[in-house]
Amino acid sequence: MSTVKIHRPRAETPKGFRDYFGAEVTERTAMLEAITGVYHRYGFDPLETSAVETVEALGKFLPDVDRPNEGVFGWQDEDADWLALRYDLTAPLARVAAQYRNDLPSPYRRYAMGPVWRNEKPGPGRFRQFYQCDADTVGAPSVAADAEICAMLADALEVVGIPRGDYVVKVNNRKVLNGVMEVAGVLDPSDPSRFEAERGIVLRAIDKMDRLGDEGVRALLGPGRKDDSGDFTKGAGLTQAQADVVMGFTSAKRATGAETCARLRDLVGASVIGAEGVAELEQIAALLDAQGYGPDRIVLDPGVVRGLGYYTGPVYEAELTFEILDEKGRKRQFGAVAGGGRYDDLVKRFTGQSVPATGVSIGVDRLLAALRAKGRTLGDGAGPVVVTVMDRDRMADYMAIAAELRQAGLRAEVYLGNPKNFGNQLKYADKRRSPIAIIQGGDEAAKGTVILKDLILGSQIAQSATLEEWKDRPAQLEVARADVVAAVRKMLDQ
Amino acid sequence: MSTVKIHRPRAETPKGFRDYFGAEVTERTAMLEAITGVYHRYGFDPLETSAVETVEALGKFLPDVDRPNEGVFGWQDEDADWLALRYDLTAPLARVAAQYRNDLPSPYRRYAMGPVWRNEKPGPGRFRQFYQCDADTVGAPSVAADAEICAMLADALEVVGIPRGDYVVKVNNRKVLNGVMEVAGVLDPSDPSRFEAERGIVLRAIDKMDRLGDEGVRALLGPGRKDDSGDFTKGAGLTQAQADVVMGFTSAKRATGAETCARLRDLVGASVIGAEGVAELEQIAALLDAQGYGPDRIVLDPGVVRGLGYYTGPVYEAELTFEILDEKGRKRQFGAVAGGGRYDDLVKRFTGQSVPATGVSIGVDRLLAALRAKGRTLGDGAGPVVVTVMDRDRMADYMAIAAELRQAGLRAEVYLGNPKNFGNQLKYADKRRSPIAIIQGGDEAAKGTVILKDLILGSQIAQSATLEEWKDRPAQLEVARADVVAAVRKMLDQ
Repeated sequence: MSTVKIHRPRAETPKGFRDYFGAEVTERTAMLEAITGVYHRYGFDPLETSAVETVEALGKFLPDVDRPNEGVFGWQDEDADWLALRYDLTAPLARVAAQYRNDLPSPYRRYAMGPVWRNEKPGPGRFRQFYQCDADTVGAPSVAADAEICAMLADALEVVGIPRGDYVVKVNNRKVLNGVMEVAGVLDPSDPSRFEAERGIVLRAIDKMDRLGDEGVRALLGPGRKDDSGDFTKGAGLTQAQADVVMGFTSAKRATGAETCARLRDLVGASVIGAEGVAELEQIAALLDAQGYGPDRIVLDPGVVRGLGYYTGPVYEAELTFEILDEKGRKRQFGAVAGGGRYDDLVKRFTGQSVPATGVSIGVDRLLAALRAKGRTLGDGAGPVVVTVMDRDRMADYMAIAAELRQAGLRAEVYLGNPKNFGNQLKYADKRRSPIAIIQGGDEAAKGTVILKDLILGSQIAQSATLEEWKDRPAQLEVARADVVAAVRKMLDQ
Repeated sequence: MSTVKIHRPRAETPKGFRDYFGAEVTERTAMLEAITGVYHRYGFDPLETSAVETVEALGKFLPDVDRPNEGVFGWQDEDADWLALRYDLTAPLARVAAQYRNDLPSPYRRYAMGPVWRNEKPGPGRFRQFYQCDADTVGAPSVAADAEICAMLADALEVVGIPRGDYVVKVNNRKVLNGVMEVAGVLDPSDPSRFEAERGIVLRAIDKMDRLGDEGVRALLGPGRKDDSGDFTKGAGLTQAQADVVMGFTSAKRATGAETCARLRDLVGASVIGAEGVAELEQIAALLDAQGYGPDRIVLDPGVVRGLGYYTGPVYEAELTFEILDEKGRKRQFGAVAGGGRYDDLVKRFTGQSVPATGVSIGVDRLLAALRAKGRTLGDGAGPVVVTVMDRDRMADYMAIAAELRQAGLRAEVYLGNPKNFGNQLKYADKRRSPIAIIQGGDEAAKGTVILKDLILGSQIAQSATLEEWKDRPAQLEVARADVVAAVRKMLDQ
């Protein structure tokens, strides 16, 4: 016989992808279920589109301005269509809103959740597949739709375990920024395409506020900025006074919504679009107030600049205000976990008709990380009761014990590995984070009893318990076989 | 200005893909939640792998023998790896079991659910993306693991709404078939590779029992078969007596499990592997009996042949036994909704080591179709209460009504389209399958009341109600604004 070299495939996830085990899955599922419960109560209907779309239908809807045209996983289908994995849940919504426009109710409120894929360079904590959870209203021109989504976002955060006071939903409006840009001389209402390049620079500049600070942004609004490496970025060419107007916008937040609006009204001066934007913000605040959503939950804040280049009207962002420790042990605010806004050209590229739409996307992984940081995840992460196997021939008895426990609603399993080494069975139970091991050897079987071993207490004792605690609550208990369900219940409740 | 021809993308799902709306999503979600609740109670842990795997890791695990090697959606990654969408949930499990073999508990019980993708020709009811819901135990050599999965499958069917008596889990064993093939002269235990071609023909022949009937299968076991088109398929070349043994296998089911095993023991004669297979079936039946899973739920049935070419030990299949009407109005049994078995070489291609594994896959769409056929779907498909807009300027009042209803746990929304035409608002409510419309015009606002319109009763009256019914339960009711939540509750409960 000749020797054949056997090629073994690598057992690896592709680069940038990962697996989720046990509680990682149940906690996310429970969180999404709670959120979609809120969406549902608001009258939103679920929509699940396929992961695959034609590249043509996908188009490009991402709010980040600098995103390259590539960035999707695509391939050519047999019939020559190019297909790709969806990169968000908004592009499929646009396709659905156009495809079913005669059948869907109008306005159409829908929620969607599921994985999306980005063909980007993976990095630490950056994956090429991740979850989104969106809610959008298509076909409602009124800012009542935006107000509704802000209220819903607040409810969603509270229902997953972020208490009032630990979050704030901030609302801004692209139209106000348009008014500001008009005043700053980079928007001409009579010729909207003029100064497009300058407006792009302004938008990108204020988007970098966090990173560059006031001075850096001012440089980009003016002549330009040389970064640490010596590279020069051309600025928007505003004068000092014009730049003041733009800078005034991002820092226009005042103690109350009314004062903020007064400040904004000053800034936008005679701009019609600017005044319209301020009026919309006032209206949103009034609608929310009437439902009891005051500034302890939802505030007007022109400092919210993310996505302003993409959205066409109100913009909103949910921030968690509690502090966590970053990698270097420094305190910092947790930050944004959801964002959205109004984008009125959703289906236009398909149908030619402008359709108003507004919606929010929750960053599922970030929100989950926040809940974990605060120890507030939902979902039952408890391990099963493990019925050990002392006598291979009495497997039926052990399985009957597990079946009884399950019929009583308890999580239970029989050890199904090689039962020879009892230590391995307990090690297994430990790995399963099992609260209780059940043992029935020949002696117990003859007496009609079983032994319950309290593994949680056992490991506490091993670590730190005092002798008194040990006496007070023995880690091992012998009970009648007939009482096994009741005894397990009692031990779990302790 | 020159005329530019605008290219509009088609708003279409790619061929073979589809969208799921509203109750299609919630019903499936509720069903999967119920099933995974059972899996969880049996000690199975969730695993969610990414949709994308390396083609190398995916390999080929499908139970259908004739499947071509293509059939996946694949593309080349930038770093030259070929990637593809998973085509089932077993291949990713194999990869995970190999990749994390030092970290996972052993045995490892896991469940997984989610979409899988097949690059196949779409057809009516055949989609290129569909759901699977699997549970597998890796690392447990004992047939206790198989018995457990059969019991779990029965529990899962009952929990989603298939009552006892409307389903049966059938159990067979590949080892018994091996014994039968030994007796039939197409398996030589001392030289397992001999007669491989013949065994392939036998496996494919009995798999076609439903389609070809006794005679057709016998022809394939013997010299061969000419089909209606005149094409000839070469047979396995068995003698009449040898074919009798094989045919005897698939029809070996008797009134009781014990009698079936006796019949099988006769058929496998002196074959060691055959005797082992029969013993395993007896053991499974005994383990299930001890837990109260009798033949009213789980039966030994050698007539289950699907997947026998793929599995290496016990094979199981869940069938729904109630009748439905097919497309032509004929009664027929609903048929299989889940199947699985033991496949002991799951991770061998990665590690070289043989690891025992057994598992089941539920056909999510088929089971959901069965529940729909019986009117037993879970999931709340009720539309929201719609608060209509009579006066655009009092939007805040309408939103406050909806907010109150939601805070009371009711599903409610405000109409957010153009409110001018009230008829459109009621048409919208109808499209939303709304049970109640709430109306508050200027008169009602002045009086501090609202009108509740019972839309369900309204449409009943429009169709068929008598005058007495109409008087008895008016379809419209005026209540104090302060009582709106209580009044809606009462109307919904009627």
